[in-house]
Amino acid sequence: MTLKIAILKETAADERRVAMIPSVAQRIAKLGASLVLEQGGGAAATYTDAAYTQAGVTTEADQQKLLGDADIVLAVQPPSVETVKKMKPGSLLVSFIYAKTEPDLVKALRDGKITTFAMELIPRISRAQAMDALSSQAALAGYYAPLLGCVHMQKILPMMTTAVGSLRAARVLVMGLGVAGLQALATAHRLGAVCEGYDVRPETKEEAESVGARFVDTGVDARGAGGYARELTPEEKTKVRAALSQHIAQADLIITTAAVPGKHAPRLIDADQLAAMKEGAVVVDMGAPNGGNCEGTKAGEIIKVGPVTLVGPTNLPSCLAAQASELYAKNIYNLLEQVVHDGVLKPDFTDDVIKGTTLTHDGAITNDVIKQFIESAPAEKVS
Amino acid sequence: MTLKIAILKETAADERRVAMIPSVAQRIAKLGASLVLEQGGGAAATYTDAAYTQAGVTTEADQQKLLGDADIVLAVQPPSVETVKKMKPGSLLVSFIYAKTEPDLVKALRDGKITTFAMELIPRISRAQAMDALSSQAALAGYYAPLLGCVHMQKILPMMTTAVGSLRAARVLVMGLGVAGLQALATAHRLGAVCEGYDVRPETKEEAESVGARFVDTGVDARGAGGYARELTPEEKTKVRAALSQHIAQADLIITTAAVPGKHAPRLIDADQLAAMKEGAVVVDMGAPNGGNCEGTKAGEIIKVGPVTLVGPTNLPSCLAAQASELYAKNIYNLLEQVVHDGVLKPDFTDDVIKGTTLTHDGAITNDVIKQFIESAPAEKVS
Repeated sequence: MTLKIAILKETAADERRVAMIPSVAQRIAKLGASLVLEQGGGAAATYTDAAYTQAGVTTEADQQKLLGDADIVLAVQPPSVETVKKMKPGSLLVSFIYAKTEPDLVKALRDGKITTFAMELIPRISRAQAMDALSSQAALAGYYAPLLGCVHMQKILPMMTTAVGSLRAARVLVMGLGVAGLQALATAHRLGAVCEGYDVRPETKEEAESVGARFVDTGVDARGAGGYARELTPEEKTKVRAALSQHIAQADLIITTAAVPGKHAPRLIDADQLAAMKEGAVVVDMGAPNGGNCEGTKAGEIIKVGPVTLVGPTNLPSCLAAQASELYAKNIYNLLEQVVHDGVLKPDFTDDVIKGTTLTHDGAITNDVIKQFIESAPAEKVS
Repeated sequence: MTLKIAILKETAADERRVAMIPSVAQRIAKLGASLVLEQGGGAAATYTDAAYTQAGVTTEADQQKLLGDADIVLAVQPPSVETVKKMKPGSLLVSFIYAKTEPDLVKALRDGKITTFAMELIPRISRAQAMDALSSQAALAGYYAPLLGCVHMQKILPMMTTAVGSLRAARVLVMGLGVAGLQALATAHRLGAVCEGYDVRPETKEEAESVGARFVDTGVDARGAGGYARELTPEEKTKVRAALSQHIAQADLIITTAAVPGKHAPRLIDADQLAAMKEGAVVVDMGAPNGGNCEGTKAGEIIKVGPVTLVGPTNLPSCLAAQASELYAKNIYNLLEQVVHDGVLKPDFTDDVIKGTTLTHDGAITNDVIKQFIESAPAEKVS
């Protein structure tokens, strides 16, 4: 048998990634599948239709034709309800979904009898690391954030010795030392900055030091579940704030990366701390899509707040679309490899990774938390 | 005695630098001078009026008052003819002038009996290095250019090892290995790129290697005068082109920095070579203000030409205005230290550096090349 796999063209504003790239498509074909790209779907990520064709992927301009007989549909951003309605019952969607912000989409997936693998639900366990798209995308975003900061700074990061004396190395503070934060430190360290890293989880100290940064110890331990920090108590927040204020005031560039899944990004820098920063300092707030780690951040904008330039990027992985798509495609390959055997789609829903990743299946929302969130919500007005 | 030194507020579009910063102003005051800043002149470079006041510099909103009794006027960009007309006869202007593109300004300086130190004329000899503003500004521009390229690339510079395999390091080619080119290589090398450097002057091989780059040898030697390359013959150009095409085609990021003083920037990349580059590659053309090293470059714009994103920055030092102003101010300090003694301005016009730097003095154009260029030009229509 041969499975038919469709690759959607992304339509969200500023989304340049594509869910599958030509070289990885060739490997997926070997699982017993034929792949079809929605025409022009890779162009924004530097992958031309010609490159797909050369890799054995056909292209299709008509989305209805593309999806009507597809067994598996691949996407980066949550597809629209209209797109889902073109999919056939029993088919598999692999994509980021972010169910809590997309209740209508989840219902459409449920009602359309679509099996949904939500990439953000991949369990953060060792065995699933090769499928962990949140991590792969965060690594690239983290690399990029300091560069984005650098082009908005009026100072250089490294020490530079010139005929008229030396320029001092800049001070970079990275707040939140997950995958993105550590990569941000690595970039800043490569560029020669004096680096400091901060996280509520004290076990990140060694990781920060491994990429050349000094760890800012605030004396508060906030280890949480799933690799994220738990929320801090008000007392803890006050203690952390006091310890951090001095480091914030000394920084030339700050990258904030703190996230709590499904919640507003935790506040790491308030207006008073911003106002006390150096003239010309820059904050790149990677929490911008979730409300911002910094008070006053405007998602998608670069604004001047007192002495500080406050950068609020909304989709950093898209800025590195070529390689972000490559890693995402490989994440998907590793996931599909688990469920496609000799051209037949056979997910083992007793497998922890598959079970954890599945959002909808066979007319039901299979993730309990999301099910309760969506199906217990007050009924919407029927339009 | 006390000299009065005026610091102009820059008015050119995109010019954020200022000719003198507070900390260096304090040192200049010790030469026997009082300094006055045109109100708000340092703000765009992160230096507030308050910071100047604290350093003993007063501020003045009225340019006529500022310049009417100033003995020395400091600027970054060539001032306007109107501004020069406010200066008093016998006073000294220290600024970039670029006389060949500013004939009216030069005539106004001559006719106004202004003594002009043109910063771009500082002789490129060891003794004058500490005054060499072209070098200090080029060093910062060179640092910044790869970062500007990086934020327009969809690939990362370093090798990155992830749970789904490694991303290869990007290939960066820097063409033109003067001060800017070497700093560009240094930044790219810091970021983990595979670096190649090219210059028509074979003696730059060792310098390229010293910052971690491989030197592209084309077999053509084009050493010229004054630290610049001479222009190549057509045969040499063909030979160089053939040798370079392959390196250009393999590059993910190219920085071009070639300049010939007072002439159109030499063409290093033609349209065919551009078209043969990788999909998604980026060229940062530092020759953009002088017509571009790359065919098709548009000064001040970021354009897509075939597979390539072509970035044509016009004023990179201004992007790093805080530190560019700091180095420029120090260059000026070192120059003024030569001519101001106990509060008296006494240039020694027999000194090689002072002689070489002086463009106009006492009603005459003292630089022979410029004098011939300006005064032999066909007479302008009298308005």
